[in-house]
Formats: sequence, C-alpha cells, structure tokens
Amino acid sequence: MEFPSADDIKAAANRISPWVHYTPVLSSQTFNKRFETQLFFKCENFQKVGAFKSRGAVNAVFSMEQARAEKGVATHSSGNHAQALARAAALRNIPAYIVMPENAPKVKVAAVKGYRGQITFCKPTLEARETTLKKVIAETGATEVHPYDNLQVITGQATAALELIEEKHDLDLILCPVGGGGLLSGTALSTHYFSPKTRVVACEPAGADDAYRSFVSGKRVLSVNPQTIADGLLTSLGYFTFPIMQQFVDDVVTVEEESIIEAMRLIFERMKIVIEPSSAVPFAAILENKVNVKGKKVGVIISGGNVDLEKLPWQS
Amino acid sequence: MEFPSADDIKAAANRISPWVHYTPVLSSQTFNKRFETQLFFKCENFQKVGAFKSRGAVNAVFSMEQARAEKGVATHSSGNHAQALARAAALRNIPAYIVMPENAPKVKVAAVKGYRGQITFCKPTLEARETTLKKVIAETGATEVHPYDNLQVITGQATAALELIEEKHDLDLILCPVGGGGLLSGTALSTHYFSPKTRVVACEPAGADDAYRSFVSGKRVLSVNPQTIADGLLTSLGYFTFPIMQQFVDDVVTVEEESIIEAMRLIFERMKIVIEPSSAVPFAAILENKVNVKGKKVGVIISGGNVDLEKLPWQS
Repeated sequence: MEFPSADDIKAAANRISPWVHYTPVLSSQTFNKRFETQLFFKCENFQKVGAFKSRGAVNAVFSMEQARAEKGVATHSSGNHAQALARAAALRNIPAYIVMPENAPKVKVAAVKGYRGQITFCKPTLEARETTLKKVIAETGATEVHPYDNLQVITGQATAALELIEEKHDLDLILCPVGGGGLLSGTALSTHYFSPKTRVVACEPAGADDAYRSFVSGKRVLSVNPQTIADGLLTSLGYFTFPIMQQFVDDVVTVEEESIIEAMRLIFERMKIVIEPSSAVPFAAILENKVNVKGKKVGVIISGGNVDLEKLPWQS
Repeated sequence: MEFPSADDIKAAANRISPWVHYTPVLSSQTFNKRFETQLFFKCENFQKVGAFKSRGAVNAVFSMEQARAEKGVATHSSGNHAQALARAAALRNIPAYIVMPENAPKVKVAAVKGYRGQITFCKPTLEARETTLKKVIAETGATEVHPYDNLQVITGQATAALELIEEKHDLDLILCPVGGGGLLSGTALSTHYFSPKTRVVACEPAGADDAYRSFVSGKRVLSVNPQTIADGLLTSLGYFTFPIMQQFVDDVVTVEEESIIEAMRLIFERMKIVIEPSSAVPFAAILENKVNVKGKKVGVIISGGNVDLEKLPWQS
C-alpha cells in the first residue's frame, strides 16, 4: 500500500491554504505548572466549520480533475464532515450530495443547507446510509469522499500536524484523538516525515476502543456498539487508516468518560476555549497519567469545537 | 484634574509586560459577512486570571515605592479584581488583604487564597465592605487599590487598547463595555493619544445604565439597584472615571438583556471562545444596531472569560 508522501502533504498545505485557517497554537501556564510539562494545543476548533474536517474535505475537492469534479461529491455523514464537504464543494462551485439520517440534528441539517449541500434523508442505520449513498452516486455520477478512509482526506488532515511541527520544534510527543483515524493517520505521517524523533500517541475513549484493540492485536477490529460522549470518535478504523496507524503511531491509550468530561471542563475554564468532547480525549490521557509528559514538550491536537451548548456534559 | 498621559500608559505597558499576557486579536468571517464590517476582538478573556483586571492590578502594585508596598495592598471585591490584586501582590511578594462578602462564591474565595490573598469576610452590603476595608487598612497600613477609581489601575487597563491599536491600525471605532469605567476610561485615553481619529463608544446594559444617564446629563449618576446578567457592570462610575468618560468617550449606548445573552451565545458558537456576559455587551450593541459598523473597522474589547459554566445564560 502506498501512503501519502511528504511532498503530497506539502502540496496539500499549499492547495488548501486559501480556504482554511492556519490555526493558532495555545498554551496554559496553569496546566504546564500542574503537570510539569510544556503543552502546545493546536486549536482546530478555530478551523473553518469548527473542526479539522475542513482540511481533508477541501484537499479532496480541490484535488479532483475538473471533468470529474463537475459531477459533484457525495458522502453520508451527520457530523462535521458533512458541513466541511458541502462547504468545500461550494467553494469550487460543484454539487455536494449529502446523505443524512432523518434524525440528524436540525442545526446540522441547516448548516449543510447553508453551504448549498443537497441532502437526501434516510433511515438512521449504517446500512440505510450506505445503500442511499450508493443510489445517489449511481444517479448523479458524483465521487464519494469518505470522512476518513480516503487518501486525499488523510493528506489534508496531515496539514494540521505539519503546521504544529513547523511552529513548535523538537516536540517529544504529539497526542491525537482517534475515531476513524483520519486525523490520527495524517498526524502520524506528518510527524514521521517532518519531525521523526517525535512520538505519536493516539488517545481513545475506553468505551470506543477499537483502535486500541486493533493496535495491540495487529488486526483491524470494528467498533461494536461503542458508548462515549466523544461522539466524533464512534467510528472504526478504515482500510487506509489502520495500516498507517500500525506503521507510524507509537502507542494507543484509552481514557474513561469521567476524565474526558473533566478534561473538557478544565479546558473551558482555564483556556477559555470552546471544544467538543472528542477534543478533550488527549488531555484526559494526561489527567489519567496514561502518558508521561513530565519535563517534555507535548503537542496536543484539539480536533474541533462543535458542541451542543444547550447542555454541557458536566451539567446536571 | 490631571489624567494619565501617553507616557504613563507606555510606561505601564513596559512595567506590566513580564506579568501579563499580550492577548490575541481574533476575527470571525461569519460576523464580518453578516454585519458587512470588520470586527477585531481584543481577547482579554485569555488574560491572566481570565480578565483585563490583571493589567490594572499589576500596574498599581508594581508602581508602588518599596516601603509602602511592603505594608501590602487592600481592596474589597468578590470578583475578578480580588484575584487580580492577590496575584499581583504575590508576584511582588507583598501581602494582599481582600475583604469579601461572606456569601462570595467558594470558587472565588479559593482563587484568592490560591494567590495567598488574606481574606476578611464581612456582611454582604456595600457599607459593611467599606467599613471592614477601612478597619483592615487601619490595622495593617496597607494601601487601598480600588477596582477602577484609581489612576494606576486606569493606566494599566489602558494597555489593552494600546495593544489593539498597535496591532490594528486605522480603526474607525472601538466598542468597550462600561461598569465602573476603569476599562472604558483606559481605552478612551489610549485611543485619544495613540489613534485620535478612532471613536470610542461605551456599551452598557439598559438595566445598569448609570454611565448612559451620567453621560447625557453631564452629572455623575449612581447605580441604584441595577439588574443585569452582566455582573461585571453593576458598579457606578467613579471620581476619576466619570470625567475621563465625559472628555474622551464619544458615545454611550445601552442594550437589552436578551441581546447580551444572544451575543454571548453567538460568540461561544461561532468564535469558540468562552466569555463572561459583560464581554458580550459591545457585540450586543452591534446586534441591536445601536452602533453603525457597516463598512467600518471596529475594535471590540472582550473584557473577560470568568463565567459560571454550571449554567450558561441561554440554558433553561
């Protein structure tokens, strides 16, 4: 299997730069003092549509040849990828066909429509989503852009870690959340090429630990009925993302739900930034002392900030 | 009355720079598009102790002569100023005597103690606070540092607008919340000296509109039973802050509670930052169309981010 190269990632960074933010890296002296470490938070919550997903979607859409692009792009998603893909397609002025479960939150439906995404609703099962997507693609000739198991998407996601590495040299560690593995495999590739001495540790909710189980067993294990508040991390590793993780990720650790909630709250309180639960998973690993950060320079990828502000997880 | 000079403000910026953050200026393309304007948010929510108050407190504490400083500083406050003053005193290794009402939130008491502040509790009335403070000062010889009606404090607060003006040239407007007027008068002085073509508009909750009434009547009107969710803006203008406002502030506008809540929520949702209700007041003035921002370059001072995360104002 051929993985994206260093040149591919550099090219993606150039390709997407007019359409995405170069996001800031924030620090907290309170956290650094408490954990005797230096943490550098790469804040993709400030990214377009509020998540790193914009990088991969823009890279995939703007990598396509014109004739193929004109037929549009398609995906099934009820989350950040749906918005990111609709937005990327709108920027290139091509159609985006988004299959969404009929119970998708109204706010997410409205967001996709706001970017002129053409929505097809289906029953809220994976099977219905996949069948409906196939039908939409058959009718339109659109190209599927998978949320994570797509090399152009992975290459786009890799640009977040590239920026972090360019800004903060000599990191000892990079901590990254893992769901389907798009962000993680991009992070691991960028680290391998551009900062090879830096270790990459994937952080995962114990209630959705397919990546951990896959990593230790050497076989791709699928998520079965995963349970976690980190709703961006429910998906299983993919055909591409699993072997990239096997080859380039140094360790996988799991964390409990209580730690994710505490980590999220501490980041709101101390750093004054809004993040989604998935983004709190790496910091939860620090709270649980699952990774040794003492005396080290540690990059932490904050994946996004799209959280339901009606009720935050620590509120009773 | 002699006001702080341009040189005073520059000196304060140098004096406090080792101890406070040079805070970032953030933008939102969503807001800029919606209001056909360019908004530049000066983010004092990222400041030490989570609010601009650190600037004035550090400036006051580090301006004192050694002999006087050694006897300590004192104030009555249950809010950000108490923490900011305790922290500033700890940095200079002098005592801070903080008078707090006995019903002050535990988290604020703990924060002051965390900075080695020596707390004296009193009944939760202004009279009890003032009497207790006088007694503490008589016993200790400490110097009172008023939260806003103090020229060193005002000079310190002025450095936030100085940084904004240095970073973003040719602002047409700066919008600033007003409570006791420390931040506002500092902002107005910096704007007068360093960007004299920029207009300064004070933004105030209609339920605590003493600054508005003082501004239009030309007489200092005190707050009587003010009612607003913007709990940092309940105080009345002071002996120093009122005349500075009269001379250097171009306009005062008031906003409704619903707009403050909507503004706060929009800033959480779109900008992904945590702010306190007082910080949302200037953006509420834009939502209410109380200031004309169309086609203009507008600075917006975000005063702080210390908000009760147990319950946000829009939550039922």
